Amino acid sequence: MARPYDTISFLSDYGTGDEFVGVVHSVVRSIAPHATVVDITHGVAPHDVRAGALTLVRACQYMVPGVVLAVVDPGVGTERRGVAVEVGEGASVLVGPDNGLLAPTVAMTGGAGRCISLIDDKYHLESAGATFAGRDILGPVAAHLCNGVDMAEFGEPIDPVSLLPGVVPLSQTDEKTGAIRAEVLWVDRFGNAQLNVGPEDVAAWDERISVKWSDQTRTAKRTNNYADLGHGQLGLVLDSYGLLALAFDRRPAADELHLRPGDGVMLSEATA
Amino acid sequence: MARPYDTISFLSDYGTGDEFVGVVHSVVRSIAPHATVVDITHGVAPHDVRAGALTLVRACQYMVPGVVLAVVDPGVGTERRGVAVEVGEGASVLVGPDNGLLAPTVAMTGGAGRCISLIDDKYHLESAGATFAGRDILGPVAAHLCNGVDMAEFGEPIDPVSLLPGVVPLSQTDEKTGAIRAEVLWVDRFGNAQLNVGPEDVAAWDERISVKWSDQTRTAKRTNNYADLGHGQLGLVLDSYGLLALAFDRRPAADELHLRPGDGVMLSEATA
Amino acid sequence: MARPYDTISFLSDYGTGDEFVGVVHSVVRSIAPHATVVDITHGVAPHDVRAGALTLVRACQYMVPGVVLAVVDPGVGTERRGVAVEVGEGASVLVGPDNGLLAPTVAMTGGAGRCISLIDDKYHLESAGATFAGRDILGPVAAHLCNGVDMAEFGEPIDPVSLLPGVVPLSQTDEKTGAIRAEVLWVDRFGNAQLNVGPEDVAAWDERISVKWSDQTRTAKRTNNYADLGHGQLGLVLDSYGLLALAFDRRPAADELHLRPGDGVMLSEATA
Repeated sequence: MARPYDTISFLSDYGTGDEFVGVVHSVVRSIAPHATVVDITHGVAPHDVRAGALTLVRACQYMVPGVVLAVVDPGVGTERRGVAVEVGEGASVLVGPDNGLLAPTVAMTGGAGRCISLIDDKYHLESAGATFAGRDILGPVAAHLCNGVDMAEFGEPIDPVSLLPGVVPLSQTDEKTGAIRAEVLWVDRFGNAQLNVGPEDVAAWDERISVKWSDQTRTAKRTNNYADLGHGQLGLVLDSYGLLALAFDRRPAADELHLRPGDGVMLSEATA
Repeated sequence: MARPYDTISFLSDYGTGDEFVGVVHSVVRSIAPHATVVDITHGVAPHDVRAGALTLVRACQYMVPGVVLAVVDPGVGTERRGVAVEVGEGASVLVGPDNGLLAPTVAMTGGAGRCISLIDDKYHLESAGATFAGRDILGPVAAHLCNGVDMAEFGEPIDPVSLLPGVVPLSQTDEKTGAIRAEVLWVDRFGNAQLNVGPEDVAAWDERISVKWSDQTRTAKRTNNYADLGHGQLGLVLDSYGLLALAFDRRPAADELHLRPGDGVMLSEATA
Repeated sequence: MARPYDTISFLSDYGTGDEFVGVVHSVVRSIAPHATVVDITHGVAPHDVRAGALTLVRACQYMVPGVVLAVVDPGVGTERRGVAVEVGEGASVLVGPDNGLLAPTVAMTGGAGRCISLIDDKYHLESAGATFAGRDILGPVAAHLCNGVDMAEFGEPIDPVSLLPGVVPLSQTDEKTGAIRAEVLWVDRFGNAQLNVGPEDVAAWDERISVKWSDQTRTAKRTNNYADLGHGQLGLVLDSYGLLALAFDRRPAADELHLRPGDGVMLSEATA
């Protein structure tokens, strides 16, 4: 058998305080010792499928082609399907629960090729309980893919259109006022609050932009780096993914502005 | 020399906020570049030998055969021994402090073969202070084992019965009432509180089980997955290690019920 | 081309809750699949260049020779330079921002050899924004170094004396009283507060040492391990880097004494 894949990019909400991640690594290494596991992150908030999907789609363009193992799986042990989804004409295979977690990445990488529902337990680990699919089903499937086992062996083909869609919220422009109704997609470790707004959306505006959320209104400066901001000056910084993020210089904006992922934010041209 | 081992499974209470884990990885790679270190977890609570021992014994059945390096070591630098313990007829060697951390895993993997007290400093790193045995003694020994150095070279043989025993608390059944006096073994990232009770212990009971702790009494539903529970319904879910865990669907039961590892819990048949 | 380096030791303030570290690993593996990345730590406090520099210099003596990738970079995207600095006569190359982060390690490893300002974008990743140099500039440079690309290809030579110096605070002895004005360098996971004082500095003193900070005064016992301390007894423990650390046995001294990195502490001989 060929060994088409030698890298497993692994994302989950398992955290690293317990042994979950280490056990999956161990299972993978037992099955496919030649494979390297790259941990994308295991810090997705517990059960937060939306955050996991957004993290995966941000990272996917940088991942090594190969197997992507993604597990944020509150429905583990129920009838929700485990799936393997081919993308990039077979360059990569995404393995995870069919709960929307994979969907934005499938779309971003050109759409699904073959899809398999992982119902054949031949390649699964026997387990004492059904709540750790990363160890018993998804991890072993990822490892056997690296050993050259064909996707078709893991279960039955399913129609890509039957995959649960993911939701990537789009911003909306008010046709009357030109204001943009945006949303916080992500708050990173540094407290920067990424919005679903790109620089092209505000290209026609002045450098100073009015930002409203909850009962607050502030003026932010559009810029390309944090250090360009004065002390306490709010910025709309072009972040490393090409989106605008509410940020301060060396201080956590989301904490200080009480913004969390999913919160609505209204942007408009600052009046003089 | 043969190279019998190429994997070091590494567990500690070092955390990942400091450089402790990275330094041990560096030391191992300097000595045995061919070895792969699999991090089981470094999130064991500081100095919590009991939690470390329970984490190791949960993970051990999934670990790749080879060297297991385990460090939760409040007595570092004192007369407590560092030991290497052969298990599985030489399939693996456990390396760590002789403080009970390794004991449940030794028992689970069939008992100790050869045991060595790591008193020969020939393979140790010289160090400026005695408080980082993972870097100076245990890590180097693990690495040299991967290079084919025989256990006997690291010190003097000791009798396995002299190893400090570990304590895995067993639940007790009240002969009169049939109630089970259990204990919380582990609270995981998701807030599930694993008990030292298996499904066989409550097999004769109804699906509804009475749970008492502190001054609280609740009724829990026995089930195989979280999503089977209604909103706010307490479950006794068969977890991935085959034990029952107090859990809610997508909410942290231990937080909400104020349960921590070591807390006592009484289970009995729910009265109608 | 030769492949002089096969290890990248990686330190940052990225944390592991987001995908930053995983994306850098992915980028490195895409460019230099043969290289192994050893994570020293990513838990440096956000933007804390001093803490990052001290962590790196503690770890550097244990690192595998090769490439060191260090990123604590509040000035990312500004005119601050990215640099590559050869040390140990080419045994290693440090890659990071020129903001003092690398300086103590350069000094500790014998001083800088060739230095390059990373201005040539030939080996950089194209990026949507300028705030993630670890992914777009520093990580790719580290990976290409492992592929045998010569430093000179990454930009233009700079004079080592132009590198921003780092600050490692030295303790001071009061000539009149003999007291030592020290500083907390580091608080580790266990709450031990490392001081910039070595055992030789207090060798002439009694085992009991007076410790003053803020408005507090305590007497500490000088010792070589934590377990030697009685319950609640403060220690000045010789730590694993050869410095004295304020510590209790199995309790976090820094928390209980309200000490943080940078705080001043005065040591003197305890009066009878």
